[in-house]
Order: sequence, then C-alpha cells, then structure tokens
Amino acid sequence: MNIPSTPVVIREVGLRDGLQSIARVLPTEHKLEWVRAAYDAGQREIEVGSFVPARLLPQLADTAELVAFAKTLPGLVTSVLVPNLKGAERALETGADLMLLPLSASHAHSLANLRKTPDEAVADIGRIRAARDAAGSRCRIEVGISTAFGCTIQGRVEPAEVLRLLQAALDAGADRVGLADTVGYADPRMVGELFEAGFKVAGDRLACGHFHDTRGLGIANVMAALQAGITRFDACLAGIGGCPHAPGASGNVSTEDLAYLFASMGLPTGLDIPRLLALRARVAQWLEGETLHGTLWRAGLPRTMQPAEAQA
Amino acid sequence: MNIPSTPVVIREVGLRDGLQSIARVLPTEHKLEWVRAAYDAGQREIEVGSFVPARLLPQLADTAELVAFAKTLPGLVTSVLVPNLKGAERALETGADLMLLPLSASHAHSLANLRKTPDEAVADIGRIRAARDAAGSRCRIEVGISTAFGCTIQGRVEPAEVLRLLQAALDAGADRVGLADTVGYADPRMVGELFEAGFKVAGDRLACGHFHDTRGLGIANVMAALQAGITRFDACLAGIGGCPHAPGASGNVSTEDLAYLFASMGLPTGLDIPRLLALRARVAQWLEGETLHGTLWRAGLPRTMQPAEAQA
Repeated sequence: MNIPSTPVVIREVGLRDGLQSIARVLPTEHKLEWVRAAYDAGQREIEVGSFVPARLLPQLADTAELVAFAKTLPGLVTSVLVPNLKGAERALETGADLMLLPLSASHAHSLANLRKTPDEAVADIGRIRAARDAAGSRCRIEVGISTAFGCTIQGRVEPAEVLRLLQAALDAGADRVGLADTVGYADPRMVGELFEAGFKVAGDRLACGHFHDTRGLGIANVMAALQAGITRFDACLAGIGGCPHAPGASGNVSTEDLAYLFASMGLPTGLDIPRLLALRARVAQWLEGETLHGTLWRAGLPRTMQPAEAQA
Repeated sequence: MNIPSTPVVIREVGLRDGLQSIARVLPTEHKLEWVRAAYDAGQREIEVGSFVPARLLPQLADTAELVAFAKTLPGLVTSVLVPNLKGAERALETGADLMLLPLSASHAHSLANLRKTPDEAVADIGRIRAARDAAGSRCRIEVGISTAFGCTIQGRVEPAEVLRLLQAALDAGADRVGLADTVGYADPRMVGELFEAGFKVAGDRLACGHFHDTRGLGIANVMAALQAGITRFDACLAGIGGCPHAPGASGNVSTEDLAYLFASMGLPTGLDIPRLLALRARVAQWLEGETLHGTLWRAGLPRTMQPAEAQA
C-alpha cells in the first residue's frame, strides 16, 4: 500500500458545515470556546462560519465575531464559506485567511443551493478574485467542488464535468481546489480515480478532500484520497454536518476518528486526541438531543496508544 | 489504487460472533429465519454457531440444530467455531463444511479465551486435523489468528509472533488461515503490512480478514486487506459482535455496509442489499434494546444504485 508518512491537516468545519445543519443556534460564547479548545488541541485550520444572509442561516450570524477572535490565535488559518461576491466582500473586510467557495458539479444541486448554474458560479469566482486582488488582500480563494461524486437530486455526476469545473475554477482565479462528497455517494474506487484525474488537471493546487460518512465509507474514502496524494481533509467534531439541499446527507467524517486514523498510522497531525475527545464531550453537552456521530469516543484510544503512565 | 474487480465473499458471523456477545438468547426459530433470509439475500458462507459448552455460551446451545438446517440449503458453506478437539468432534458429527479454530497471537488473550497458550492451541490443531482425517471428513479447517493487531489485555502484539503462528497453524494441519482484529486496534497501514507479510508465509491459504469497527476504522481496514489481496471477509449483520474476553471490542464490521462498499466499487458479492436491509430490520426487532451498528440502513442506497424504476 502506498501510504505517505507526511504530515496531514484536518480542517475543522464543524462550526460551519456542522452547525448549519442543526436547527438550534449555538450561542457565540460556546462557539468561541470551541474555537479556543480546538486550537489548544492542535487544530490550525478552522472554518468558523459562513457569510450568508442571517435570515437564511441564523445559526451562523455571528461569523464576523468568530473570525475576529480566531485571528487572535497565532498560526491559525481562519476560513469562512462565501456563496457569492457579497459574502466575499465581508470575508475580505474581516481579514479571514481563506475563503471557501462552493461550486456544485451537479447542475440541479447548484440551482438548489446557490440559485445559480455551475458556470454562473464560476463567473462569480472571477469577480471574487478581482475583488480580492483589488483589495490587496492575501486571503486565499479555495473552491470546493461539491456533489463531485453524485447528487441526491440529479443522481449521477459525470467525472468529466467535475474535471471541467476544476479547470474552470482555476482559470477563474481560484488559488486552490478540493473535491467534496457532499451527499455521501462516494466509494474508495471513485475517490481514487477522481482524485488521480484531478491531480492531472490541478497539480498540487488540488488540496482538499471533504467526505461525509452517510453510508459508512467516509474513513475508507479518506484513505483512498490519501493514497492518491491528498494530505488535507475537512472534518467535523462529533461527525455533525450535512447540506440543507442534500436530503439524507447527514454526517461529515468526524474529526476525532480521522485524527485517530492518522495517528494510528504514524502520520503527524499535531493533534492531541484526548483534548479533542474532551472538546467533543463539551460539544455533545451543548448539542444535547442532536444526532452525533463518530466511534472513537465510545472506546477511547487503544492501550497501545495511551501515554506510557496509563499503560502500567 | 490497486483495487481488484474479482468476486468477494462476505462470511456472515453474526449468529456466532454477534450473538455470543449479547446476553439474551435468541430463540432457535429466529436464528433459522435469519439463516434462511441471509441465504435468500445471497449469502453463501454462514457461521451458524460455536461448539462450546452450553454453560459457557447458552446463546449458542442450538448450534447442532442450525448446522442441520443450514446443510439443507444448496451451495451454502456452513461454518462453526470450535475451541478444542471436543468441539471439533461435534462439528464432524454434524457434517459442518468448515471449522473455524481461534488461535490468539496474544499470550494473555489466549489464556483468557481458551485457557491455553498459543502453542498449546497449535498442538490442538494437529489433533483436530488427525481427527478430521481419521473420520474421512471433508470439513475444512480454518485457523483465525485473533488479536493479530493488538490486544486489550497484553497491549502490543508482535507481527513476528503472528507470522510464526500462521506458519505453525499451517504446519499443524490447517487448510486455511485468516487474520482477525479481535479488539479493534488495527489501522490500514498495519493491515496492509501484516497481510502482505502473511501472504509470503501462507500464500493463497491466507484467505480471511476479520475486522471490528470499535474505533471507526473497520471499513478502511477491509479496504487495506482487499488491496493486499484478501477477497473474503467476516462480517455481522447490524455490526453486532465482540469478544467476551476483550473488553470494549464491540462491533464487527456490518454485513450490509460491507456489501454496500463492494457493490459501490463494482465487486461482485452475489448479495441483494435491499434484502439484507430487510433482514437487518427483523434482526433489530428481535434484538430490541441491544446496541446495533452500521450506517447504510439509515440512509439507504444512493439514488445512483437503486433499481431503474425507483430512479424515475
């Protein structure tokens, strides 16, 4: 097996992809505590929210405040999702380090999620790039190709269309691109093949894998992307997450299980798993009654991975 | 990625590994219905029970009756677990097609589980082989190396010891061998490396992978073994299972999620996933109140894998 031993980054997207799928509004003070504790557990990329109108996603209305706090933490890459130029302008104002622009490979999902065709969304990338450059900002523009492995509305999504949009996103000014299995349709073979093809289009600018665990294959899909050469993954603490326009899409891969996967194989992540599990317990209290996911928290670390003093 | 497109066998071990970990005794009539429905869903290898003293595992006291029924189903490979010569003699009497002999790579687990050292268990394999040959039986002898990736009692298990026992089991007369992550300590790198090394010792007589999903890596470990060349896997419907002497070892990989994994990658299994899910629903009724696992049953098959008429 071709498993690299290079460092791997887990970008926490629970505060955005996770919380947007949960109806209740988590108080800002808890979100701030989450960001702080995730940072203390070693997370160095956190998507703290989304610049969408508060009437659409009241859960994320405090995104600007979260960016402001996150920027006080040295070395933290603060990322926000932006659906359009207006959102990008707010991201630039707040000084976020990274803007994540969704671009649906499914025409039907694109209309449902962004009320734009994929090519209209590509045009937006160009406008956002121009605004970023005009502002003299160093905020990175990352485009996530959503529904890259299939769509609950449209069904099959052609790999050729995904690759066309990867190229279009780069041509329009994206600094980086990623592939997302928004609805949990991917399998390891598809993941391996599409990422391999994606690298031929985008080279090392293909720099993120985003997987849901809707049908139990999330971690296996991460492995397939890792074997294809991806070393940066989105994940949500406690496996929360979904997409409001992708029915049944619940459950990102969980941060703590992913951290365990990499640690067990000896890949450095900089993450402190017991601290992540402690944070998960706090988040579970805040979200009491919501369906959470993930497996490690039940069993804990294996005896072979516990600190020496605990093995006595 | 090196993913074969050859047929894959999922051996159902829910009636043995699953039910032995659940205190309640499932009535024989339900077990018979389970075997029948699993067969109707396409399963062609089923471990129906274990020939251990009924006072130790009253849940499996009806194993002989289950073997008798299973043998009426054409083409079904009926397997039973046997812990010692006495159990093997019962298996030979009932005409089971396959005996699964556990052999712990962990000295401590071997003493807890079998009250024998690993080498004493190897000596038993020789006696069982002699008894099988003396009886003129064609019952296959398969040795499953348990705790091959670590042990909750002992901690680390040396790969060299696992490979020594693989060789010893074959020398003692095993027809086939497999590697089992009894307690959910394996990771994909370990799995790939140990199976690759195992093939060098056992060649194609290394013919089974047995994984638990205790820490979320079960399916990824299956993928690693598949990539190493294994095309036969144990699994439990609804992900039940564990080991009475391996605390925290709950949860085999679930049959239905594994069937979905292979189907999604185009590997033939002969399994009818909607029928498996229907059976899972019945088993869940019978086991109401027990902790079940698996993911596919919540979300169902993706739109892209549903029968054509359902996609309209």
